[in-house]
Amino acid sequence: MRRALELAATPGVPLGPNPRVGCVLLAPDGSEIAEGFHRGAGTPHAEAAALAAAGESARGATAVVTLEPCNHTGRTGPCAQALIEAGVARVVFAQPDPNPVAAGGAETLRAAGVAVELGLLEREARRLNRAWTFALEHGRPFVTWKFATSLDGRSAAADGSSRWISNETARRDTHRLRAECDAILVGTGTVLRDDPELTVRDAVDAPLARELQPLRVVMGDRDIPADARVLNDLAETVQLRTREPKAVLAELHARGRQHLFLEGGPTVAAAFAAAGLVDEVVAYVAPKLLGAGTSAVADLGIGSISEALDLKVTDITVLDDNVRITATPRKKA
Amino acid sequence: MRRALELAATPGVPLGPNPRVGCVLLAPDGSEIAEGFHRGAGTPHAEAAALAAAGESARGATAVVTLEPCNHTGRTGPCAQALIEAGVARVVFAQPDPNPVAAGGAETLRAAGVAVELGLLEREARRLNRAWTFALEHGRPFVTWKFATSLDGRSAAADGSSRWISNETARRDTHRLRAECDAILVGTGTVLRDDPELTVRDAVDAPLARELQPLRVVMGDRDIPADARVLNDLAETVQLRTREPKAVLAELHARGRQHLFLEGGPTVAAAFAAAGLVDEVVAYVAPKLLGAGTSAVADLGIGSISEALDLKVTDITVLDDNVRITATPRKKA
Repeated sequence: MRRALELAATPGVPLGPNPRVGCVLLAPDGSEIAEGFHRGAGTPHAEAAALAAAGESARGATAVVTLEPCNHTGRTGPCAQALIEAGVARVVFAQPDPNPVAAGGAETLRAAGVAVELGLLEREARRLNRAWTFALEHGRPFVTWKFATSLDGRSAAADGSSRWISNETARRDTHRLRAECDAILVGTGTVLRDDPELTVRDAVDAPLARELQPLRVVMGDRDIPADARVLNDLAETVQLRTREPKAVLAELHARGRQHLFLEGGPTVAAAFAAAGLVDEVVAYVAPKLLGAGTSAVADLGIGSISEALDLKVTDITVLDDNVRITATPRKKA
Repeated sequence: MRRALELAATPGVPLGPNPRVGCVLLAPDGSEIAEGFHRGAGTPHAEAAALAAAGESARGATAVVTLEPCNHTGRTGPCAQALIEAGVARVVFAQPDPNPVAAGGAETLRAAGVAVELGLLEREARRLNRAWTFALEHGRPFVTWKFATSLDGRSAAADGSSRWISNETARRDTHRLRAECDAILVGTGTVLRDDPELTVRDAVDAPLARELQPLRVVMGDRDIPADARVLNDLAETVQLRTREPKAVLAELHARGRQHLFLEGGPTVAAAFAAAGLVDEVVAYVAPKLLGAGTSAVADLGIGSISEALDLKVTDITVLDDNVRITATPRKKA
């Protein structure tokens, strides 16, 4: 299963909204027959890729898969059926399929007399497809709220200037996180004030190919100028003329987006946080003091320390003289 | 010299305003004859302690000392003279004495025919007596500004409540830092609002003995109630009826205080920072968001990001889910 997880995590795949899946076919003596992983929508699933590589030797084999084999015909046929037809004797998978349309593979396999085991390294498998799993289970994208702040909680100085609060290492790290998402959101205020490009750039500061760029989402009623950088050709852009986080997430979910990177400004981010629609916080803290200016986090409707939005820290990483703190909001009792 | 530095750093010494000093006497063959360290005002200096332990065997020895042997008669006689009289042949010291009253030991020794070397591990020696050295060189106490903040730069919620922003590990760590200072300062506003005790407590939350407590300093014109906790018997307290940081530091310097721990509130701390009178910043960052309330750092008169008070980070330590960032303000060009 560890090898199957490795295959699933092959860098650069899958393109598009499908989950990462890896599959290893083992002979009855435990030796490996074939491997496969999913490369993206429209290409063979991991099981199909492994079966194709194995050919006749799949008969009597054990298939080790990171995700429950699918049970439905999409752009490719159902994997459960393919495994049965190939004569696979046993299937071990990590994560049950959270997709109601595709689930049921385990039952189909068992009904056909295939031995089925599940749950092995399930946590690792879920982590691999965290946003995909979340989106299926919650019916909306997973929301990561990123902000950069001075040590005293400011995102801009009194005159509005903010370049740069974070150091270069932190800014590069932000591009890495953006690349893990499939949508980036800012409010119209941020577009009008900062004119950000909102693309993902690589290690040498060149933008990734257009098809690898997350969808740029601008939220709010105000018109944005036609020459705004966010409207350039480097990535796709949509403006959603609403101030309701729920409406934004519903629209992005309908578009198949699973992981939203919320970049601000403070008011837009606070609206998501106050609505309980932030699933992860990533804060870059820089060793500067401003004493005045724009707060990195706008009003959350919190009046007393006992109502503070408590975060459970999952990671603290030092990036030269900046600190990245990753955390998830604790649910209130 | 490493051994001499270890001796100087003996925990719990010296009591009072004197520097930490260690001394090792070595025979011509390099073997150790005797050691000594300074235990506090009125007790023998490190050299005197080592000479007393060595007796006649000090003749022809090398004295390795962390600080230039003193040249003046205070509560004890001049160490330079004592070394000469004991027949020491060579003196190696780390840090020249920054005290104009006591300096000149090296010259006195050389004039008496003693070989003198200096500068070995000087940086380590200076660090050992950072505040003492600073106070002598700058004519005022070294100022450490400590604040606790939420991830979004708040020291209290909208209703003023602030207990607790930091976790217990961070709060204990604060007591450790307080213990390294000889004065703790807050404004009258903090006394009236929070009624802090401002004592140093040990690992089991008991206050240290009164003579080990830093001086509690309350700054400002407003009267504080007679039953304020800061006026209890656990430590000495002084109120300085001024709003001028310079005046406060002059008064504390006159009282022989070398290391001020500035605890706030935000307005008092900002006055020191804006006046360039903060030498070190210690920020405890807690994973909470408040979105409103009191800013941990008040107005510093900074208008633009280019004027930000840039800090040079000297340490980042993770304290469970809190982060302690220690830094020194960069001097503006």
